[in-house]
Amino acid sequence: MGKVFADISMSLDGFVAGPEPTIDDPLGKGGVRLHEWVFKLKDWRAPHGRTGGETGPDNDVMKESTANTGAVIMGRKMFSGGQGRWKDDPNADGWWGDDPPFHVPVFILTHNQRESVPKEGGTTFNFVTDGIESALSQAKAVAGNKDISIAGGADLIQQFIRAGLLDELQIHISPILLGGGTRLFENLGDAKLEKIRVIDSPLVTHIKFRLKK
Amino acid sequence: MGKVFADISMSLDGFVAGPEPTIDDPLGKGGVRLHEWVFKLKDWRAPHGRTGGETGPDNDVMKESTANTGAVIMGRKMFSGGQGRWKDDPNADGWWGDDPPFHVPVFILTHNQRESVPKEGGTTFNFVTDGIESALSQAKAVAGNKDISIAGGADLIQQFIRAGLLDELQIHISPILLGGGTRLFENLGDAKLEKIRVIDSPLVTHIKFRLKK
Repeated sequence: MGKVFADISMSLDGFVAGPEPTIDDPLGKGGVRLHEWVFKLKDWRAPHGRTGGETGPDNDVMKESTANTGAVIMGRKMFSGGQGRWKDDPNADGWWGDDPPFHVPVFILTHNQRESVPKEGGTTFNFVTDGIESALSQAKAVAGNKDISIAGGADLIQQFIRAGLLDELQIHISPILLGGGTRLFENLGDAKLEKIRVIDSPLVTHIKFRLKK
Repeated sequence: MGKVFADISMSLDGFVAGPEPTIDDPLGKGGVRLHEWVFKLKDWRAPHGRTGGETGPDNDVMKESTANTGAVIMGRKMFSGGQGRWKDDPNADGWWGDDPPFHVPVFILTHNQRESVPKEGGTTFNFVTDGIESALSQAKAVAGNKDISIAGGADLIQQFIRAGLLDELQIHISPILLGGGTRLFENLGDAKLEKIRVIDSPLVTHIKFRLKK
């Protein structure tokens, strides 16, 4: 079996999204700065249909996560920024256009039922209304021996940690201060983490943990 | 001239002290776990009058900070846990007994005037009532070419950062969750940090920053 993991960029002050996210600025004020380390990387550009890009330690970290991912689980807000009935959601098709960068089945947690939406390049969007355990077993059924990525947002990752369903968490610490926004490390009950690896580069520090069961 | 620096242990969820600190539990609930990485180190034990201890990367980090420190500045709460008039403070002499581990002049920010208190081993406690700039110039006067340590608490370090008076900040991230307490990275205005070094060990990850001026 593959593992269930989450990989997420975090500011030095603990935020994984900036304050006041909107449909036009879904990462919140300054939130895009969290991700500056990824945009030049070869293995971020390739699944986004872009050529070129840098290799090196940051790219190795990214490649390691994406290469073995067999399915993705995310929250409704990360998917579209909206809530409520899909027909009233102006971004109901997600942020990523016709050829999303996932290239595997994606399971979206929502309270509102909807038929699956196939996309180009191997991505399918599937909508799960009966909770994280159901999403996980559906993801495992399609992922085979590959890993399951819990893509976010913070609330969904927290749910998986609290339920004891996350195996590994990797945070990519960007040395910036956002001053507000969405925190990752809260509402975690008595979760215990074991640090298993640190890789540092000029733009970011990658710290990987195993969740103790 | 030496530099002005702060070195502080922080939990993964951003706390430098646990919740509900008291006179009997000054680091707050679980707060002592932040510092577990230091107690076995040779260069923590020596200034505390203890023999033996471990060497290695963590000890090198600690030694680097303490070896070149010529004066220490701290807040009243870090010094005694108290507030108000000194004669009403049950811990007016501080936490450290007759031979405190500083071995250099210490300047304590307080609203309540008090004569200096000489201790054994080179430590003197000096009380400063006219603000951080005054404390810093007094500390510089005695430190010569050596560095000035801003020992804490978080509020004092934040004051130095906001005033543009801190040159370097090193955080020692312990991979634990405290769930509440005192945060380091808040009330920092538009401070900008440049990461200059990361050293990792099994118990802790040391990240050093230069404050951009």
